Amino acid sequence: MGKVRVANFTVSIDGFSSGLNQRMDEPFGDNTEGLHAWYESAMVERDSGRGGPEADQLQRFHEQAGATIMGRNMFGPHRGPWADESWTGWWGDNPPYHHDTFILTHHERPSVTMEGGTTFHFTSAPIDVVLDRAKESAGDQDVIIGGGASTVRQYLLAGLIDELDLGVSPILIREGERLLTDDVAAALREFQVVKSYPIGNATFYNLSR
Amino acid sequence: MGKVRVANFTVSIDGFSSGLNQRMDEPFGDNTEGLHAWYESAMVERDSGRGGPEADQLQRFHEQAGATIMGRNMFGPHRGPWADESWTGWWGDNPPYHHDTFILTHHERPSVTMEGGTTFHFTSAPIDVVLDRAKESAGDQDVIIGGGASTVRQYLLAGLIDELDLGVSPILIREGERLLTDDVAAALREFQVVKSYPIGNATFYNLSR
Repeated sequence: MGKVRVANFTVSIDGFSSGLNQRMDEPFGDNTEGLHAWYESAMVERDSGRGGPEADQLQRFHEQAGATIMGRNMFGPHRGPWADESWTGWWGDNPPYHHDTFILTHHERPSVTMEGGTTFHFTSAPIDVVLDRAKESAGDQDVIIGGGASTVRQYLLAGLIDELDLGVSPILIREGERLLTDDVAAALREFQVVKSYPIGNATFYNLSR
Repeated sequence: MGKVRVANFTVSIDGFSSGLNQRMDEPFGDNTEGLHAWYESAMVERDSGRGGPEADQLQRFHEQAGATIMGRNMFGPHRGPWADESWTGWWGDNPPYHHDTFILTHHERPSVTMEGGTTFHFTSAPIDVVLDRAKESAGDQDVIIGGGASTVRQYLLAGLIDELDLGVSPILIREGERLLTDDVAAALREFQVVKSYPIGNATFYNLSR
């Protein structure tokens, strides 16, 4: 049985994972330049073949993930009913998931199978029901709660997450969506900080039950 | 003319600088063990004579500081009128300030001069008036806004701080007092992240106008 994990979730020094005004050319909104700069460092490290914590992090992320759940705002910038169903995410024809990926939305639409094995499922079911479907799909691999903050907060508050890899990047977003709001911080009472480690210019914390 | 600086201010991963239930044997309250563990690493480093960022940080802190301002909750665990005036802080007979140190309080009492040159002044004046007095005392050295979070937030919101050294320690406090509340984060619009650097097990961020 795999774990339910939040992997590679990144916030700013002031605790935001996205800024205001999410839009087509700024998927994370205002003041988010550099939020995921660590990821490029990690890919360079991995591609160098030298190994190290960056490579390990990416390898674990990709090899142990068997299904992903994300909020609709992570899937796209649209709100409300789908104007059309041509939008299939920010990631092009071959998204980096390669497994069943569940989009939490009030507006269901038919599943879409992409190149590379990613299938997007659009569901308005309760989050625990979606998690059960994702676990079934993942088998003995992990279910990744991808984001955004609102989705991760819901799963943390429901006590459904086993482990959280949280990165802090050296930027200020100033206004936006927080991950660790007061209610969520209080709900972390069963979590311990297992380790902290740098990746690129970010500091990561592994929080686990 | 010196700067107005917040130096060595430390928060948890979830953004708190103190927990619930501040008390005599837990000056920072519940779940704060390890919050300032980096400071011991820095002192070991300094005392080794090898130099390095830890030593630089402490040296700058001590050599450039000409006056300090702190809230009453940083001075002691008491609330309301002083039951007696025997309490002279957490730091023993020779506090680590060695200069005029202003305590913001609704309950004034006579100034107290300690060994080593620290004089505690108790004032109910507005924060900008206290800052003017501190600047006069500091001369061309810096005024340090010491804490706690409430005091630093007030000065940040008033636009009176030039520079902030903020450390994040790898602990979860879960409930307590936040530094970067939404209003304060929004008020940082003139600040840039100048650098980030590890000290002991903490990651520090230098934020400056």
